[in-house]
Amino acid sequence: MYTIEQLRDIIKAELNKQEYVEEPYSLFEPIKYIMEDGGKRLRPVLTLMAYNLYRDDIEKALKSAIGIEIFHNYTLLHDDVMDDAELRRGRQTVHKKWNSNVAILSGDAAAITAYKYIETVEDSYLRFVIDGFNQVAMDVCKGQQYDMEFESRDDVSVEEYIQMIYLKTSVLIAGSMRHGALIAGAPEHEYNALYDFGGYLGLVFQLQDDYLDVYGDVKEFGKSIGGDIICNKKTYLLIKALELAGDKDKALLNEWLKKKQFDAAEKIKEVTDIYNRVGVREAAMAKIGDYLEKSRGALEKIEVPEERKIHFREMIDFIGGRKK
Amino acid sequence: MYTIEQLRDIIKAELNKQEYVEEPYSLFEPIKYIMEDGGKRLRPVLTLMAYNLYRDDIEKALKSAIGIEIFHNYTLLHDDVMDDAELRRGRQTVHKKWNSNVAILSGDAAAITAYKYIETVEDSYLRFVIDGFNQVAMDVCKGQQYDMEFESRDDVSVEEYIQMIYLKTSVLIAGSMRHGALIAGAPEHEYNALYDFGGYLGLVFQLQDDYLDVYGDVKEFGKSIGGDIICNKKTYLLIKALELAGDKDKALLNEWLKKKQFDAAEKIKEVTDIYNRVGVREAAMAKIGDYLEKSRGALEKIEVPEERKIHFREMIDFIGGRKK
Repeated sequence: MYTIEQLRDIIKAELNKQEYVEEPYSLFEPIKYIMEDGGKRLRPVLTLMAYNLYRDDIEKALKSAIGIEIFHNYTLLHDDVMDDAELRRGRQTVHKKWNSNVAILSGDAAAITAYKYIETVEDSYLRFVIDGFNQVAMDVCKGQQYDMEFESRDDVSVEEYIQMIYLKTSVLIAGSMRHGALIAGAPEHEYNALYDFGGYLGLVFQLQDDYLDVYGDVKEFGKSIGGDIICNKKTYLLIKALELAGDKDKALLNEWLKKKQFDAAEKIKEVTDIYNRVGVREAAMAKIGDYLEKSRGALEKIEVPEERKIHFREMIDFIGGRKK
Repeated sequence: MYTIEQLRDIIKAELNKQEYVEEPYSLFEPIKYIMEDGGKRLRPVLTLMAYNLYRDDIEKALKSAIGIEIFHNYTLLHDDVMDDAELRRGRQTVHKKWNSNVAILSGDAAAITAYKYIETVEDSYLRFVIDGFNQVAMDVCKGQQYDMEFESRDDVSVEEYIQMIYLKTSVLIAGSMRHGALIAGAPEHEYNALYDFGGYLGLVFQLQDDYLDVYGDVKEFGKSIGGDIICNKKTYLLIKALELAGDKDKALLNEWLKKKQFDAAEKIKEVTDIYNRVGVREAAMAKIGDYLEKSRGALEKIEVPEERKIHFREMIDFIGGRKK
């Protein structure tokens, strides 16, 4: 059985071996560029972890797991065009380094490459793998569409927000785990339980991002506190605050949202005060705790020897207790 | 056995039955929009024709054939963004009617939808269908990339040009036919022969487009003659003329290519005169004849009763003799 770190090293070594580039180079160079820029390689690691719950011959799942990382990077290529993002992990985005057309077409080529890799599974699993990945890919599209739509709406509900972050990010985490278990030969109710597990854990992670932006310890969190407040980002905290606030606090909060000129520290303090008054901090903690509990419950449905689940439990504890 | 017209009607009726739209509507409405705007439905018809060479129960191939039409429209969605096209079959393009982000993301969703439809085949064919379609999809990306690159190059060779139009358009025609034969249970050498057949016929069609723009009868061709000459479009004729021309005609041709202000009729006449002098008309006719011959040769390899091939022979004759 492998540790998470060992799996990450195996993924990284395998990624270094890939040759994405053939003619026309201009189509494939951007894929190489975005694939080599690091990151935690979370998704393929999760695929191998799920596979490793059942089997030790992880090399059989390796190429397919790499495909999930390529898929993830394809979504980043297109998202960065749509969001007109300048930087990705500290480097220029593809559409800034080259141009939008390059990012669109290289993204399309990356998607096809991803499918080719993901589909390197035994024939008996192929239909399930394809159906599963078509569903995941479509959900990710839907999530991105909701995310873009929500930017111009000011009546987004908490339920809509959670559905959006679930589709946009959690589904791929969930799908990565289901994929690993599926191609390891897990029974249907277990690979579906891993899908649920990954989905809940993805929600925990993203709600924590919202929470830590306001309530994180600046030393531990690593980035400055209140960034989301300054730019009026529609986070769980903001949406929930607007829902919970009485007339007076709601008016005050809307006033801060509309202000074009303000002192950043003052805005952060005032908005945080409103959050505290209306009970958003407790609501967020309760929601995170709820999803953590649900992820634990999903893991209980996996009937492998307890020692096989140790890294998954570590992961729940790590994510549950994270301060950065 | 079905006629081409019957197959087209069946495809159209089936297309009318499709429900592409679910939530979020803004993601799926553009797919419905581009799918309903008509066109000849050539590719799914070819799939059914190829299937019908071997089997009469074409309803079994219908959904998968529709997937090929959806795939084709996905490539149009993204190509129109990249080419910044205003109109498509007389209607506003998706990125003009909505915006680029909508066209990118709806295109991605259309690609996934296409795969879902295409993959509705018997399990025993699934691996071949997927491998075949991944190859086709990647070739189409490569063709689009070459097409964009060639716009800013003035040293494109005839071989490069033919490779580009082959990848960008012929491969999908070829793949549509291979797909139909494959899922009808044709032997490998026959579905591959149909791929070759479709590839050659695709090249004939596109080279004829180049040819008819200059040498077509204005009454029969339907659009005005010389459009490609006026906008310096890199067609087979222009590229071949630059290759065949002596120093004097080459200089003259380049002069016309550089002119910013000119009388359209004069430019068409002068460039056509150069084409005639250097023998481009004969070269194009020979090339078209060559590919027509090759497509006939590929069809010979299909060992079904001669009467089954009748519509394919009609198609060769129709395309071979087309004047519009």
